[in-house]
Amino acid sequence: MTKKLLTGRLLHASSEGSADLYYASGFNAPDPFFWFEAGGQRGIVVSPLEYSRALKEAKSGVEVISSVQLLASDGVAKSVPEALCRRFQITRWMVPPDFPFGTAALLGQCGAEVELYGGEFFPKRRKKTSAEIQHVARAEEVTQEAMLLVHDMLASSVVNARGQLVMARRLLTSEWVREEVEVFFKRKGFSASRTIVACGRQGADPHNIGTGPIVANEPVVADLFPRDDRSGYWGDMTRTFVKGKASPLVNKAYCAVRKASQCAMEMLREGVSPAEVHEAALESMTSDGFYTGLDQEGRPCGFFHGLGHGVGLQIHETPSVSPRNQVPLAAGNLVSVEPGLYYAEWGGIRLEDLVVITKDSYRNLCSMQKELEII
Amino acid sequence: MTKKLLTGRLLHASSEGSADLYYASGFNAPDPFFWFEAGGQRGIVVSPLEYSRALKEAKSGVEVISSVQLLASDGVAKSVPEALCRRFQITRWMVPPDFPFGTAALLGQCGAEVELYGGEFFPKRRKKTSAEIQHVARAEEVTQEAMLLVHDMLASSVVNARGQLVMARRLLTSEWVREEVEVFFKRKGFSASRTIVACGRQGADPHNIGTGPIVANEPVVADLFPRDDRSGYWGDMTRTFVKGKASPLVNKAYCAVRKASQCAMEMLREGVSPAEVHEAALESMTSDGFYTGLDQEGRPCGFFHGLGHGVGLQIHETPSVSPRNQVPLAAGNLVSVEPGLYYAEWGGIRLEDLVVITKDSYRNLCSMQKELEII
Repeated sequence: MTKKLLTGRLLHASSEGSADLYYASGFNAPDPFFWFEAGGQRGIVVSPLEYSRALKEAKSGVEVISSVQLLASDGVAKSVPEALCRRFQITRWMVPPDFPFGTAALLGQCGAEVELYGGEFFPKRRKKTSAEIQHVARAEEVTQEAMLLVHDMLASSVVNARGQLVMARRLLTSEWVREEVEVFFKRKGFSASRTIVACGRQGADPHNIGTGPIVANEPVVADLFPRDDRSGYWGDMTRTFVKGKASPLVNKAYCAVRKASQCAMEMLREGVSPAEVHEAALESMTSDGFYTGLDQEGRPCGFFHGLGHGVGLQIHETPSVSPRNQVPLAAGNLVSVEPGLYYAEWGGIRLEDLVVITKDSYRNLCSMQKELEII
Repeated sequence: MTKKLLTGRLLHASSEGSADLYYASGFNAPDPFFWFEAGGQRGIVVSPLEYSRALKEAKSGVEVISSVQLLASDGVAKSVPEALCRRFQITRWMVPPDFPFGTAALLGQCGAEVELYGGEFFPKRRKKTSAEIQHVARAEEVTQEAMLLVHDMLASSVVNARGQLVMARRLLTSEWVREEVEVFFKRKGFSASRTIVACGRQGADPHNIGTGPIVANEPVVADLFPRDDRSGYWGDMTRTFVKGKASPLVNKAYCAVRKASQCAMEMLREGVSPAEVHEAALESMTSDGFYTGLDQEGRPCGFFHGLGHGVGLQIHETPSVSPRNQVPLAAGNLVSVEPGLYYAEWGGIRLEDLVVITKDSYRNLCSMQKELEII
């Protein structure tokens, strides 16, 4: 006689640590708590500290249980995982890849099997509802306003004798632009940190946030990605500017990146392979004369990141638009399109829009033009 | 003949997702990467996207490896975990409880054992160095400045006919105070979101962030916890104010919480049991007439959270000052002391300082007085 396996699904994380958990529970808590789906029920188990608030804030259909009351009503279980196994007679829990190993070990000690859930834990997350698209569109609108602020700071600066930018008689630095951008976001109810404002060679590292004076005639990569404090959804947008005159090489690279972006976007529609879109962007830049690979000192150069990533409750989520992802895009996917070129000798160019995939095409959530030079 | 077990230590997370990883690598990246300690070496494995930046930013003594180069040089391995097993001939990896289950499963498929590391992964993290204490002290200094801003907004308000606070002819709301506080933090190079400014009954939920107009003669819980964008260390401080006149009950509760804080702090020194300190604070409030348990509707009431928590690269870290922690405190521990009382009928009172444990006593990083009423 075989013992019947009763299967449940389990998450254990803080809301910040797991977008799945926040998506499923609607509850935002700084410390780890449990979400479960078992025996036809869905619920969360929170500490007494969070109990009353969870009752008010959790999604409807999500039962809220206090960990202390759960353990007290069981009487035997020593831990929340054990109490959940006993309450629902679960012998197998399906969990996502980021499920904590320590909690899995605890479940094992209770005699339960723990298995990786095949595929995404909430596949729905990659197909945005219209409400979700509105959240991201709102975030992207505010991001674009902040990008105009960056543009205006560069535009209203003058260049001093050393080639540095000066605004209101003060040196314009990456730090200053970042501060103004992040304060702007706060005023709009968004949070941002590590905003990228990287000038010259700093821009050769895609995630170098930039420091020090901004200088004329060199590319400035501005990559802004705030999160809406209220909805939890992100915006993400990149532009590259040159105050003054770009070198012929930088200008050529900019045009190549812009062309790659257009070329990629023209391919977007339900059913297209993300890998093919990435490769098309790469090939476009390669055929425009920009090499991707290792430079003479062994550092990656050219276009060495994925063309895009999903954006939603996470700044980087599925689907990725990378050479490794061949799962066709679907209507409702919301992804960045951000080709870039990076060379240690002179810096980087990146242009990033957010788009929603539709049945026949795409909808761009960014309307800001792509112009390199600012006089 | 027994096969020799070669053991390594492994982390896999984003810098935001694991303070251990940020502590060990000194590298801040938004996407998951690996840290390892194996065969006498320590290193990180990052994507090509992050490689050049990691070379510049990672701690000294940490080797930086590109995932693509690691796989290419191995030639056989299909994943970074497999390549690390092969490169260092590791057959057992020690990992922390928050290690991702999916990565552990991958290691298992490569024939490696995965074991929970006994105790804290980096026990040093709970005993702060003088540099770390300086980082938190700086964060707490800025937090205190923001608390004075909250105080000043309440002080400079007037009360309208409906009992609501009005500043500069505009209703003073939780949202407005939160915005000013979080903008203040941004200007200082700190990030904060979900800052708590909870008036009246909202304060009965310790993590209710508060919404709507602030009213006179009711307690306002202000809990501010910004993170230094540069150092990554947190500040954390709570004060409770009443604009106008507190009710006798609220005043009595405030005095009980303040007394519990003093009583707990007087016990602090190396060697004391955190559980005993917590119990002393609880008993002090109980003997002052404030019941802790479930209220008539089954909701937790009174003092139902731990007295404190460690603060450092995480806002909540070890050691906790809770009834469950009997590991004696040690010099260099940095913890919050935050007794509180919460009742659904009228709201909450919480007072939180940050202290460094010393051999014979403690050092309080907050100097702001504890006074309830603001005229």
